[in-house]
Amino acid sequence: MARVVVDVMPKPEILDPQGKAVQGALPRLGFSGVTEVRQGKRFELEVEGEATPERLEEVRRMAEVLLSNPVIEDFEVHVVDHTVAEAAGTVTGQVTA
Amino acid sequence: MARVVVDVMPKPEILDPQGKAVQGALPRLGFSGVTEVRQGKRFELEVEGEATPERLEEVRRMAEVLLSNPVIEDFEVHVVDHTVAEAAGTVTGQVTA
Repeated sequence: MARVVVDVMPKPEILDPQGKAVQGALPRLGFSGVTEVRQGKRFELEVEGEATPERLEEVRRMAEVLLSNPVIEDFEVHVVDHTVAEAAGTVTGQVTA
Repeated sequence: MARVVVDVMPKPEILDPQGKAVQGALPRLGFSGVTEVRQGKRFELEVEGEATPERLEEVRRMAEVLLSNPVIEDFEVHVVDHTVAEAAGTVTGQVTA
């Protein structure tokens, strides 16, 4: 069993009203220093078997066909070793892909 | 300038109708072998200065107060070296955090 994540974000040239709303709310809540916020989607998939190149290519096609709208969104597929639930509330200082 | 991502996912014990809808659609589109789909949110933040522990702790508070609903969602904060837009369409085989 492999855990594969598909991250989907609005393309940079596409307006992102949800991200702008968050960005506008931050100063009102006393947070400063955030210059840009973009909001997108995260899909956590559990797939049978190993995360072989063929399996990941199939997930890439799922992302293209179902999980994203390629006209207005970019996506990235990556294998992860833990879910957000397993890491709940943690802050990872190191740079990750 | 640092790029910080907040991933927000429904807690495991919370129903996720969006994820279930995706999971149900996959076989109809000819995709098999996906045993679980959960759908959440991804926020890409640009913050001023370096990603110091203090700065990341502030982002953690933003996640707690504004970006997630701690009753029904888990979140994780991590620093990234690229945005989804910069990696658009790529498939990363290696396991990342």
